[in-house]
Amino acid sequence: MDKSKFSTPLSLRKIHLDDSFWKGEMELVRTEMIPYQWRTLNDQEPGADPSFCIHNFRAAAEITREKKEQGDAYQEPKYTYRGFETLPEDPAHPDPDKFYGFVFQDSDLYKWIEAAAYSLTQHPDPALEQTVDGVIDLIASAQQENGYLDTYYIINGMDKIFTNLRDHHELYCFGHLTEAAVAYHQATGKDTLLNVACRFADFIISRFGTEPGKIAGYPGHEIAEMALVRLYEETQEKKYLQLSEYFVNQRGTQPYYFDQENHPEVDQRTKIRYAYNQAHLPVREQKEAVGHAVRAMYLYSGMTDVARLSGDDSLFDACRTLWESTVREKMYVTGGVGGTAMGEAFSFPFDLPNDLAYAETCAAIGLVFFARRMLQADPDSRYADVMELALHNGVISGMALDGKSFFYVNPLQVLPEACRRDERKKHVEPVRRKWFGCACCPPNLARLVSSIGAYAYTERENTLWIHLYTGGTVEKTVGDRTVPVKISSGFPWDGRVDVTVDSSEPVSMTVAFRLPGWCGDDFALTGAQGMECREEKGYLYVTGEWSDQTRIHLDFPMKVRVLQADTRVREDAGKLCVTRGPVVYCLEQKDNGENLDLIRLKGTALFTEERSSEFGSEMVMLRAQGVRELPDESESTLYHGYRKPKTEPVSLRFIPYYAWANRGENEMTVWVRSAD
Amino acid sequence: MDKSKFSTPLSLRKIHLDDSFWKGEMELVRTEMIPYQWRTLNDQEPGADPSFCIHNFRAAAEITREKKEQGDAYQEPKYTYRGFETLPEDPAHPDPDKFYGFVFQDSDLYKWIEAAAYSLTQHPDPALEQTVDGVIDLIASAQQENGYLDTYYIINGMDKIFTNLRDHHELYCFGHLTEAAVAYHQATGKDTLLNVACRFADFIISRFGTEPGKIAGYPGHEIAEMALVRLYEETQEKKYLQLSEYFVNQRGTQPYYFDQENHPEVDQRTKIRYAYNQAHLPVREQKEAVGHAVRAMYLYSGMTDVARLSGDDSLFDACRTLWESTVREKMYVTGGVGGTAMGEAFSFPFDLPNDLAYAETCAAIGLVFFARRMLQADPDSRYADVMELALHNGVISGMALDGKSFFYVNPLQVLPEACRRDERKKHVEPVRRKWFGCACCPPNLARLVSSIGAYAYTERENTLWIHLYTGGTVEKTVGDRTVPVKISSGFPWDGRVDVTVDSSEPVSMTVAFRLPGWCGDDFALTGAQGMECREEKGYLYVTGEWSDQTRIHLDFPMKVRVLQADTRVREDAGKLCVTRGPVVYCLEQKDNGENLDLIRLKGTALFTEERSSEFGSEMVMLRAQGVRELPDESESTLYHGYRKPKTEPVSLRFIPYYAWANRGENEMTVWVRSAD
Repeated sequence: MDKSKFSTPLSLRKIHLDDSFWKGEMELVRTEMIPYQWRTLNDQEPGADPSFCIHNFRAAAEITREKKEQGDAYQEPKYTYRGFETLPEDPAHPDPDKFYGFVFQDSDLYKWIEAAAYSLTQHPDPALEQTVDGVIDLIASAQQENGYLDTYYIINGMDKIFTNLRDHHELYCFGHLTEAAVAYHQATGKDTLLNVACRFADFIISRFGTEPGKIAGYPGHEIAEMALVRLYEETQEKKYLQLSEYFVNQRGTQPYYFDQENHPEVDQRTKIRYAYNQAHLPVREQKEAVGHAVRAMYLYSGMTDVARLSGDDSLFDACRTLWESTVREKMYVTGGVGGTAMGEAFSFPFDLPNDLAYAETCAAIGLVFFARRMLQADPDSRYADVMELALHNGVISGMALDGKSFFYVNPLQVLPEACRRDERKKHVEPVRRKWFGCACCPPNLARLVSSIGAYAYTERENTLWIHLYTGGTVEKTVGDRTVPVKISSGFPWDGRVDVTVDSSEPVSMTVAFRLPGWCGDDFALTGAQGMECREEKGYLYVTGEWSDQTRIHLDFPMKVRVLQADTRVREDAGKLCVTRGPVVYCLEQKDNGENLDLIRLKGTALFTEERSSEFGSEMVMLRAQGVRELPDESESTLYHGYRKPKTEPVSLRFIPYYAWANRGENEMTVWVRSAD
Repeated sequence: MDKSKFSTPLSLRKIHLDDSFWKGEMELVRTEMIPYQWRTLNDQEPGADPSFCIHNFRAAAEITREKKEQGDAYQEPKYTYRGFETLPEDPAHPDPDKFYGFVFQDSDLYKWIEAAAYSLTQHPDPALEQTVDGVIDLIASAQQENGYLDTYYIINGMDKIFTNLRDHHELYCFGHLTEAAVAYHQATGKDTLLNVACRFADFIISRFGTEPGKIAGYPGHEIAEMALVRLYEETQEKKYLQLSEYFVNQRGTQPYYFDQENHPEVDQRTKIRYAYNQAHLPVREQKEAVGHAVRAMYLYSGMTDVARLSGDDSLFDACRTLWESTVREKMYVTGGVGGTAMGEAFSFPFDLPNDLAYAETCAAIGLVFFARRMLQADPDSRYADVMELALHNGVISGMALDGKSFFYVNPLQVLPEACRRDERKKHVEPVRRKWFGCACCPPNLARLVSSIGAYAYTERENTLWIHLYTGGTVEKTVGDRTVPVKISSGFPWDGRVDVTVDSSEPVSMTVAFRLPGWCGDDFALTGAQGMECREEKGYLYVTGEWSDQTRIHLDFPMKVRVLQADTRVREDAGKLCVTRGPVVYCLEQKDNGENLDLIRLKGTALFTEERSSEFGSEMVMLRAQGVRELPDESESTLYHGYRKPKTEPVSLRFIPYYAWANRGENEMTVWVRSAD
């Protein structure tokens, strides 16, 4: 690993976004999702299933208070398993002393706080901040004196904490708590939640490890690995990095830790294989991305962080191998990952069915996490290409254009009748839903979209990397000076980028511009006279004296690119996918009639662009001439003798994939049959 | 309904087959399957899981004996549910007093007896007959004094008989008992088993009906409907037909009978919807073939029998509608039915995925039952076309060419890696298995193949219908004379058929020759000079004086026919299927290399025939020129910009679909991408 290339994201407080595309998404998060989710967490959204999340924290806080008051006299309840998801008999009248929801319900509140924290950096909002402060106090009051904090066990009985790391989610909730705590500390400077996270982390450190008497385990659902790295980077406390290293290195070693746990409540017949948890092998021996896709992405992200901070080449080699396995063999053209609903998991290499896809929104988000971390360790634009792809397609397809409904699953081909009538596709929904019982995706979307600046830019010393051409101003610190660098762009619809610096006095620095893979060498740079320009791994490093006289202009022509898949992707054999810049397009029945399988497109088709505000904000739609096979009306049997199919020319309209299913239920396909 | 067209199969004792194709299959059944299954039923086959079937009958017989001896002093055990499949802790030492296997385990023995009975008609075998007589005595000794006979309840407790018609299989086992009893009576004239069946039927009659105090239910798994019709036809006891009518008419009426049962052992969350059992609507209101495909086929077969015998037009209309739904919207090109493994069921119309197909061997067998019964009521060759198609493809694909291993599931496309690594395809096996825990298919194959004559010919008065050109001699009764009609044919490889009559004295009769749909009008008839020839619904009725001077020769040219599917079958869009006569062909990796999805064939391709004995008996293989898309080795990413695919010409070799997977594990596909 070349440490001189390592970079880190800038604090979001140093980034002021005004991007025409992402600002709109962020505003949806701020004005729609954050308030909506807050009402849901408080069981106050009419029509939505109650979350019981705040309810649980209240119940836990009451117990913690009682324990403090009663001291040794307090009688801890004996833990009894009540199910992976517990619901009150009468949802309108939950028992105030009981835990409800999934065992990982706490994480929803943490994700909400994290999203709110990011939002506050871009849009100060005292009322929101006050709300967050209040709920942080509630969280702090639920924390046990020893630092433990998970309302499921605080309420149900502390005698069994950390006894089911495989299936329960204490370390997962801890990870989300920590992510939220760091984010809120960075956003506001307030440390109440950061202290809560540190105290819980310290408790975990005291209990976990390979020493006798300690728990030699690791998370069943990863995230703590990368969260602990953030906690280390925020506090500079080495012990948190060491705990993360321990989790990474201990994972998958023999004898399997999960085998030593007692899982009385899980039927032995459905015993989960450890590849599901990426715990089947020590991480350095893992060569293929397998198992639950979100968990995989979170683990690989944490591994990459640890590799960078510990300079561990063998670990980074494993990250690279798993990256290649993911993007070379197991990623949808939308940046979605997870080819099967069975275990919400990766299927075998090149098995990427379009209609049965899982491609969970959270997994595409996880791929963005993984990509940003690979970029931090190795600024190679191939990672940024994937990050950009996932963000503009498989991630934001998870959210309706009005920010009010969500997809958990992001298929690439949908026939609504199949969703209703074919149980194999019961995970596929033809229109987005308001909320989910297992509500991981919407708050995950909220926290990613609100922190997009942390993915667009990273820095090291006097170098600023621009990974995504997200418009805004970045306060770059160079020596003891702060230089506002302004980026204007029309991405993702228009490839022109302007970069200026608001400094009358020249400052010596390097800006590294990503050269997107989708435009190849076909880009133009102007305004860099007198600068040193150097291309390396898909970045153009422009070094020199930057001042308000500097006007860098880049043009990345956004031509339509028709893609083919590797021939080993059987589901895409003989099919084409239309893209433009980072945006993947699809056909919808609304524009193109029913039975999209009968449509054929030439790989050399000519496209015309149509700027449309049909969906609110402006988008580029694409039109091309194709043909439609006509049914043979004269045939009365299901199968009949070959006759060259009759076709009629059709004007096809392609819309961005992420915008699909915003006009009610209808057929959709990303891959179109080739007419060649 | 036109009663003058109704026909019935001839007794198998009047048919002496010497068909080059089916005789081979029958010999496999006789020499391989019947002995193998007998050993399995007796838990004596090394390497195969024990069946416990004979074990259960022994245990039940012992209880029945004790009950008789002890009279009123006998203490009946109180029934406790022990699972849908019960296995001993140590399979080598089962408890002699306990029931093991599935709740429907008895049916395996009945199916074996039925197959043995048919085999005895074609190949007398005193040793086999003695074995059957012995096991029939065992069955008879297990029957309760009141006529009840199901070892599961006799052993586990009679207090709960007929309380779970939905999920348990007493009436299903009764149906198979009855089929076996009639077959053995027809084959040997012996009536021990027939009397057992009648006594059980009488007991059922005494307990079932809509009168107060009776059970207003019907079978959860159908078959009794058609079995009772056979019992009626054999005994001429009207009460058996009436019981069948009652089962058919009561089915699906409101309030749902199954709702009134108590199913304590079945988790309410997995409560099966009644479409699974075809009990969601009264049968005359059912318009779409739905639910478990085998059950559906068995029900529709029984409905057709009842409609014919009761002359019920409204019921026959329902049969016709359900037939159309099956063959027009839900049948694979192989005659397989059941598009989804979820519930081993029909999917929605035109949803016929090739790789995820269920297409259970028993369901294709059921379609043959249904087709023969439609033919009996309405001699229209469209029914015979489907019967022939299923028999030569989706049925016999269930059996290896050596008769020693079996498929339960018959997919139309297989990638062995997917079977191993994709849980969605865990029902698909890439090579046949020796036996199954749920061993319904192999004995079902055995009984169908051994009774093929009952599907080839039916008669009414002086008319003999030839539905399948199966070679052999049929003893046709005309008035008080018996006329041997000899059919010689090279089907399915050669379309020439000769029909002669072994009678020096002319006999006035009609032979109805089926004109296969696959040859259209392209057939030649010679030798019918002086006869009246009339074509109706795909049959050529040749009426006149038949004698040993008559030499009818028919020629149905077996040209290769390339088929396309209805455009609504999305999985087959842009694909072709190669057939010749009734045989569907496929590509295997062994002949054509890997990744069959890269192969393309023109709809107008020219085929050459290759007579091959590679698989033992002679078959016609087909060769044609196609192209193979070549992977673009220069591409390093999963998706890349469009370039017209490079192709190379390939000589393709097609083998009969039923012969696939006889050369070890390899890829297979029936549908090939069209190069047009």
